[in-house]
Amino acid sequence: MGRTIRVAVDAMGGDNAPFEIVKGAVEAVKESPEIQVLLVGKEAVIRKELAAYTYPKEQISVVNATEEISCEEAPVVAVKKKKDSSIVVALNLVKEKKADAFVSAGSTGAVLVGGLTIVKRIRGVERTPLAPLIPTETGVSLLIDCGANVDAKPSQLVQFAKMGSIYMKHVVGVENPRVALVNIGMEEEKGNLLVKSTYPLLKECKDINFTGFIEAREIPHGAADVVVCDAFVGNVILKLYEGLAATLVSKIKEGLKSTAISTIGAAMAKPALKKTLKSFDTAEYGGAPMLGLNGLVVKTHGSAKSVEVKNSIKQCVTFVEQEIETKIRENLTTEEPAETEQ
Amino acid sequence: MGRTIRVAVDAMGGDNAPFEIVKGAVEAVKESPEIQVLLVGKEAVIRKELAAYTYPKEQISVVNATEEISCEEAPVVAVKKKKDSSIVVALNLVKEKKADAFVSAGSTGAVLVGGLTIVKRIRGVERTPLAPLIPTETGVSLLIDCGANVDAKPSQLVQFAKMGSIYMKHVVGVENPRVALVNIGMEEEKGNLLVKSTYPLLKECKDINFTGFIEAREIPHGAADVVVCDAFVGNVILKLYEGLAATLVSKIKEGLKSTAISTIGAAMAKPALKKTLKSFDTAEYGGAPMLGLNGLVVKTHGSAKSVEVKNSIKQCVTFVEQEIETKIRENLTTEEPAETEQ
Repeated sequence: MGRTIRVAVDAMGGDNAPFEIVKGAVEAVKESPEIQVLLVGKEAVIRKELAAYTYPKEQISVVNATEEISCEEAPVVAVKKKKDSSIVVALNLVKEKKADAFVSAGSTGAVLVGGLTIVKRIRGVERTPLAPLIPTETGVSLLIDCGANVDAKPSQLVQFAKMGSIYMKHVVGVENPRVALVNIGMEEEKGNLLVKSTYPLLKECKDINFTGFIEAREIPHGAADVVVCDAFVGNVILKLYEGLAATLVSKIKEGLKSTAISTIGAAMAKPALKKTLKSFDTAEYGGAPMLGLNGLVVKTHGSAKSVEVKNSIKQCVTFVEQEIETKIRENLTTEEPAETEQ
Repeated sequence: MGRTIRVAVDAMGGDNAPFEIVKGAVEAVKESPEIQVLLVGKEAVIRKELAAYTYPKEQISVVNATEEISCEEAPVVAVKKKKDSSIVVALNLVKEKKADAFVSAGSTGAVLVGGLTIVKRIRGVERTPLAPLIPTETGVSLLIDCGANVDAKPSQLVQFAKMGSIYMKHVVGVENPRVALVNIGMEEEKGNLLVKSTYPLLKECKDINFTGFIEAREIPHGAADVVVCDAFVGNVILKLYEGLAATLVSKIKEGLKSTAISTIGAAMAKPALKKTLKSFDTAEYGGAPMLGLNGLVVKTHGSAKSVEVKNSIKQCVTFVEQEIETKIRENLTTEEPAETEQ
C-alpha cells in the first residue's frame, strides 16, 4: 500500500446528489484502501446518507458546507459569493493541500471557474482544459479541450497536446500516445486560421508524437490517443457523441421490438448487445480532469450514478501517484530557460 | 406532368464511377418521366455502360468531356486548368442554362470551387453553403454549412439560416421550420465570438422561426429543422455523425455474434434491425445542395451507389419546381431597398 490519496467529493452536486454521490464514495473506499474521501456538503444530510452503509469509517470524513451552487447560477458570481458552498469549500481543501483532488458532478461552470480562481493554474500554463476520455472502437481517447473557454490560441492548443500526451501516457498507460489536431481535411492547407497556425507549432514539438490532422470521422475509430481542439469544437464532439449514441441505441431497441420474431431474437441477443453498448458508455470512464492546475479537479457528468462517482474518485489515485501535476509543470516550463524555473 | 428538369450528371466522379453513376441515372429516368439526364464524361465509356440497360432513350443524352478531376488535385488549379473535365463541362451547362442542375460524386473541393466560379453566386449572397440533410430520431435536419469555407462571419450565418429555412420548407415540406444556432450551451452569454455576434442578428429576423441555440447533443434528437453553424463545425458534425454511426453499427454486429445464442437471436432480429439502421443511413437522403448559386449544384458522397445517385437526381426536381433559386434571390435581397432590386 502506497501513500493515502485524499479526495474531496462534492456531496451536493449533480442530478442524483446526495444519494448516488455518497454511495459512490462508499464503494470507492471499499475497493481502494489507499483512498480517503472527504465528503463536502450539508453535514446532517451526508451523515444521514452514510448511516445506510457499512464501510471502513476511518476512510470517510465529512466537511460541512452550508451552501449549494446550482447549474442555473452564473458561475463567476456564484463562486465569488457562495464562500460556504460545497464546491468552494472543497476547492479550498485542495488549495490548502488538505486534499489531493476534488471530484464534482455539480455545475461545470462553477467547477471550472473555481478550479481556476481558487486552485489556480500551474505557472506557465496558459489555459486549463477539461479533458474527458471518450470511448472508441479500440479503447479510449482523450478529447482536449471540452471546457468553457473558447476561441483558443495556437500556443494554448500546443499546451493541450503536451498535457494530454502526459495524461494518456501516465494515467491511461498508452506508450508514445498519438496526438492529432481536429480538422476538416488531411491536407496542410485545409482548415480555419486556428488549426493552420497550430499545425506547424505541433510539428516542431519534439516531446510529443504528433501524427497530423484528424477528421472527426476517424475519432470513433480510435485513430488518435489525444484529440486536440478548441473547446467549442470539443464540446460539439463530446455532446454529439453522447446524443448520437443515445439516439442510435434507442432506434435499435425500437427496431428490435418491431416484430414478434425480432422481439424473441432480441431477447436472445440482449446480454451480448448490452455488453457491447456498455463499452461505448461514457459513464464507464469516470470523470474529466481539468489539467494544468496546482492540484487535481475532476468533473463527472451531472447525471452520474454511483459507479461513475466511484470511478472518478478511483481515477484520482493514478493521477496523484503518477505525479501528473509535477510532470506537467516540468514539461510545460522547458520552453523557458532552464535556470529561471525549477 | 410538369416541365422537364434537365440534370447534368458527372459520370466520372466518385469511387464507383462510371458504373454506379450511370446505373443511378438510368434508375432515375425510369422512375421520373419529367427528368432529362445529361451524362457528362468520356463518351465511349458512358455509352458502353449505358448499353447494359433498357430505358427511355430520349431521357438520357451524353455530353463528351475528355478530362477528369481527381480528389487528390488542388481544386482551384484543377478547375482552372481542366476546361474539358466532366465537372467544368457540366457546370458550364448549368451556367448556360442548358441544364437546370448538376449532380456530382466527385471532388467536393472542385465542385464547390467550380460552382462558385462558373455558376456563380446569386447577387446579394455572401457565401454559398453546402447543406446536407442528416438523419434524426424524428426525420431529417438540414446542416448548414458543411462546405470548405471556414471562419464565417455573422452576416453569412444569418443568410445560411434564411436559405436553409427556404429549403426545408419548400423542398422537404416542413411547415415553419425551426432554425437553431449550434452552441456549447443554451444561455445567451455562452459561446465563441461568432455565435455571440450572430445570435442577436438571428433574433431580429422576422422571416425565419429562430428558436435559439442548439447543443450538439440535441441534433440527433431532431430538436431543430435547420441547424446553422460555421463550415468547420458543420464538417466536424457531419463526419462524426458518419464515423460514429458506422462504429456503433459495427460494434453492435460484433456483439451480436459474440455468443451462439446471440447469433441465433441476431438472425431473427436482423430484418427489423436493418430497417432501423437504414433510416440512419445518410445515403438515403441523396446529396447536399450548394445553396445560393445561379443554378442548382448537388454534391453526393464519393462512395455513392446507384440509389444515392438516383435520389440526388430526383431531389433536383423539387428544387427546380419549387423555384428555390428565385425564392432565395427574393428573400436575401429584401434587406436592400426594394426599388434597387427586382
